[in-house]
Amino acid sequence: MQIFSLDQASAIVDAALAHARAQDCHPMTVAVLDAGGHLLALKREDNSGILRPQIAQAKAWGALGMGHGGRTLAERAAIAPAFYAALTDISGGRIAPVPGGVLVRNAQGDVIGAVGISGDHPDKDEACAIHGIGSVGLHADVN
Amino acid sequence: MQIFSLDQASAIVDAALAHARAQDCHPMTVAVLDAGGHLLALKREDNSGILRPQIAQAKAWGALGMGHGGRTLAERAAIAPAFYAALTDISGGRIAPVPGGVLVRNAQGDVIGAVGISGDHPDKDEACAIHGIGSVGLHADVN
Amino acid sequence: MQIFSLDQASAIVDAALAHARAQDCHPMTVAVLDAGGHLLALKREDNSGILRPQIAQAKAWGALGMGHGGRTLAERAAIAPAFYAALTDISGGRIAPVPGGVLVRNAQGDVIGAVGISGDHPDKDEACAIHGIGSVGLHADVN
Amino acid sequence: MQIFSLDQASAIVDAALAHARAQDCHPMTVAVLDAGGHLLALKREDNSGILRPQIAQAKAWGALGMGHGGRTLAERAAIAPAFYAALTDISGGRIAPVPGGVLVRNAQGDVIGAVGISGDHPDKDEACAIHGIGSVGLHADVN
Repeated sequence: MQIFSLDQASAIVDAALAHARAQDCHPMTVAVLDAGGHLLALKREDNSGILRPQIAQAKAWGALGMGHGGRTLAERAAIAPAFYAALTDISGGRIAPVPGGVLVRNAQGDVIGAVGISGDHPDKDEACAIHGIGSVGLHADVN
Repeated sequence: MQIFSLDQASAIVDAALAHARAQDCHPMTVAVLDAGGHLLALKREDNSGILRPQIAQAKAWGALGMGHGGRTLAERAAIAPAFYAALTDISGGRIAPVPGGVLVRNAQGDVIGAVGISGDHPDKDEACAIHGIGSVGLHADVN
Repeated sequence: MQIFSLDQASAIVDAALAHARAQDCHPMTVAVLDAGGHLLALKREDNSGILRPQIAQAKAWGALGMGHGGRTLAERAAIAPAFYAALTDISGGRIAPVPGGVLVRNAQGDVIGAVGISGDHPDKDEACAIHGIGSVGLHADVN
Repeated sequence: MQIFSLDQASAIVDAALAHARAQDCHPMTVAVLDAGGHLLALKREDNSGILRPQIAQAKAWGALGMGHGGRTLAERAAIAPAFYAALTDISGGRIAPVPGGVLVRNAQGDVIGAVGISGDHPDKDEACAIHGIGSVGLHADVN
């Protein structure tokens, strides 16, 4: 009954990285999580930093955890910094309130997982995630 | 300068999973780490359990941390259970002393990373790791 | 195969501490990590505080984790405090966004490790790191 | 008032490593802690594993924490495994009940710190620690 397959997740990772190369981005790390926040697929490009896997997963996990993409979480963290500082501890360090964490919705609008990307400017990270999700016919929700 | 490329790591993951399907294994999770213990690539098959990513990474990380594959770690843990119980905490839960964690050596015999696989019987997990590592011309060291 | 030897790391520590004494700095702690973020050498001077080993390591680890020296991390943390608060948890407390964490590059420009120093004003900490890295013919990258 | 100086700690590290090389031991990691359990000096030899710094520190810290060297802790852990399993958690993963953690006593018999060594067989680790401590005229207490 798994509704977000490894085939879909792998295709998203590869399409996101292809987009990053086409845009000449810095070395990227891409993570795809299922709706439960558990890793389905991850790739870290050569020379992408050693903390990038954790950041990419935290962007995706934070989106799932709060029900909003990283772009919205960043806006809210600017308004309520103490609450978001608490959330990092509450979540055990699994939230990164910054663009590049994008919810994945199916045709019915249900959240079936999330993509997190880290390596370049957050706006570029997010653009790669949107491209990857769209490549398999799923819907990217950055807010 | 990165001596264990994403291309190699990704090929290992895919070859290991192809072997798992050919052998009709249970749903598998495969993780490949660099020599510093940092994730390069991971795939979790459909219906592979939600703890499998952590277990697969711990099998690989433990091999790197101790300098021996999971098969040797399992033997040592049977002889010195208190020390290995301590090691799980010393390492922050990043060690799994069980077959399925395999060191990756290059042609010169240097350790350049490790593969960890979890999902079926440990012997089958290990066989998939060996197959994956061999598929890219690198050397699998289970001990 | 290890590209950042203990001989180099030890010489960096000793040169950094010699510089600290010549400059009459407060008691210092110096840590040198390999590219994977693992400790190679550390010395804590008499009367250097009991948290200094962790701070020095976090300055170096944070530089490796983000691919930038502590000086750049400090600037970015001032702009994006919520994200950097999250990073401290994401990294498990292994990041200190403040000058004194310096990347070590070889002649080809590759990052082979990092130095972290804590004890005096961050600018002085950083100056000691630069001096130590230069003393063995390697390149200090504070940004 | 620091009664265990960095000069002493550094000399112990270097003498322990010289002994390890003379005995043709595996690559070693040596840690020296003060009486408060805080790191004074550490060196990790080329190709000594990435978990060795934590293990060496845990051998030393455990000796200080319980007031007995690792040899005694190993004997007690064999008799009371559940208690020692609890101790690993109670201490936050800072105890390793195995030979190679040795208390450092001054001429009056007071504990002023501890040495922890990891890399070869525990008996060899311990022999290097005893040699290092004796080289500066301090007293090694393995029990």
